[in-house]
Amino acid sequence: MKTILLIGIGPGDPDALTLAAIKAIGRADVFFFLEKEGEGKDSLIRFRQQILQTHRGDRPYRTATSQNPVRDHAAKDYVGAVKDWHRQRTAVIKALIESEMADGETAGLLIWGDPSLYDGTIQHLRDIIDESSTELSFEVIPGITSIQMLTARHKIPLNRIGESITITTGRQIEQTDPGLITNAVVMLDSRSAFHRLEGSGDIDIYWGGDVGGPDEVLISGSLDEVAERIDQTIAEQRARKSWIMDNYLLRRRPKQS
Amino acid sequence: MKTILLIGIGPGDPDALTLAAIKAIGRADVFFFLEKEGEGKDSLIRFRQQILQTHRGDRPYRTATSQNPVRDHAAKDYVGAVKDWHRQRTAVIKALIESEMADGETAGLLIWGDPSLYDGTIQHLRDIIDESSTELSFEVIPGITSIQMLTARHKIPLNRIGESITITTGRQIEQTDPGLITNAVVMLDSRSAFHRLEGSGDIDIYWGGDVGGPDEVLISGSLDEVAERIDQTIAEQRARKSWIMDNYLLRRRPKQS
Ligand SMILES: C[S@@+](CC[C@H](N)C(=O)[O-])C[C@H]1O[C@@H](n2cnc3c(N)ncnc32)[C@H](O)[C@@H]1O
Ligand SMILES: C[S@@+](CC[C@H](N)C(=O)[O-])C[C@H]1O[C@@H](n2cnc3c(N)ncnc32)[C@H](O)[C@@H]1O
Repeated sequence: MKTILLIGIGPGDPDALTLAAIKAIGRADVFFFLEKEGEGKDSLIRFRQQILQTHRGDRPYRTATSQNPVRDHAAKDYVGAVKDWHRQRTAVIKALIESEMADGETAGLLIWGDPSLYDGTIQHLRDIIDESSTELSFEVIPGITSIQMLTARHKIPLNRIGESITITTGRQIEQTDPGLITNAVVMLDSRSAFHRLEGSGDIDIYWGGDVGGPDEVLISGSLDEVAERIDQTIAEQRARKSWIMDNYLLRRRPKQS
Repeated sequence: MKTILLIGIGPGDPDALTLAAIKAIGRADVFFFLEKEGEGKDSLIRFRQQILQTHRGDRPYRTATSQNPVRDHAAKDYVGAVKDWHRQRTAVIKALIESEMADGETAGLLIWGDPSLYDGTIQHLRDIIDESSTELSFEVIPGITSIQMLTARHKIPLNRIGESITITTGRQIEQTDPGLITNAVVMLDSRSAFHRLEGSGDIDIYWGGDVGGPDEVLISGSLDEVAERIDQTIAEQRARKSWIMDNYLLRRRPKQS
């Protein structure tokens, strides 16, 4: 039997780690890393290495690194391309499990934020278990999500009294009737889909770039008033370090009565 | 200036505490408790006391306790009754701040799960700051939500590829067209609103009672097949300890193609 620990590490603040995550880091014999190629995201890998250093520095551990397959961003069939990419990632993880772990060993994967939120790894492991005869089990250790860090830093609740919350993607926002959006968190938005709601006059935005991390930027206000400033901030960060991770909450103000 | 720390403590697992929460616990001069009356939820208060014991036991601290106002559950106007209850809670917290803290001191409030998720305390503090002349600031320390604990224990992602997630309440589910529900987490459901979706034939439920805590129960499967078992489990827990906290994910299976 081999055991995999999917360890949520939060969105970039070393203090967002839970005690359960630290205990799980202590249990693993080996840690698997999937490296992004050419995205300039070295600091994200460094962050994981520092976490191991801090919480496992006193006891030796192995690491095993594979290249993270690159998704076909030009593909017309978005869901097909993502599914394809997932299959490749599943194969990479399966290969790591087969070649880098002995029977009885435990491997750790440090997952950004929380493993349940827009991260494919839980499904990869389910697929590996379904498809193969490997004796494999896994555990999920929750981590603070970038959504919670966003609301904590803006000091706002995720929902007003009794209200629902939608968590969605930039891609979905582009296909949604803007009138239906009253309280939505948007992630995975590389195209600044919030522009779609500009001019509504009654939408506030609470935006965060790299929340929790050293490059954190927060902007909030009436969408119509701050949209341009958000664009500039994204452009500046991209120019400076080639990437930014951002998310935001769109909230419609109640009608005056 | 007085400072309030809203410290997310997770949904009942002492290991769900983050390092940031532990540091915040170390900073407070006094901790405020709001006691629920007659709900038999002593164990929730004991859980908080144990956390202080574990992480502050070596250094003295003060506590100040007030009764949590009781909401009028019989009121016809739900939103009105909740708003009224919020006003009363705001007044209770304001009184604690005025009478139990000296200028320059820091108070901690241990918040179940994450302070941003269906918890009024952030808004109470915003209202106190808006309405009064008190020099007051507050910080929010994120905690693991009961939603993340639910998905971690069931070892499922919160969303399938590219999919949105709705987080909502039992009350809202009762008013929603069941056909619109494809991937929804339900909280604050005292009336087992999942029954509304029974018979759809294509809904799976991932249900959790007291997830993360010592009384954790997990049930999952086709809603039509497990709904009765969930009812029984809720009834058993209520009979045994007079309350249960439960939440669940409703997920529609894709159409066969
Ligand atoms: C693949 S998803 C992973 C989400 C992660 N599992 C979590 O719990 O936050 C990546 C998206 O999360 C959001 N994100 C992750 N870290 C962030 C951060 N530190 N600040 C702002 N957004 C972040 C961005 O929307 C990004 O496109
Ligand atoms: C007032 S809300 C507070 C939620 C909390 N702030 C959080 O982050 O989970 C209370 C609701 O949260 C859910 N809940 C809280 N703790 C739970 C637990 N340990 N297991 C299952 N559901 C829980 C239930 O739906 C309950 O009705």
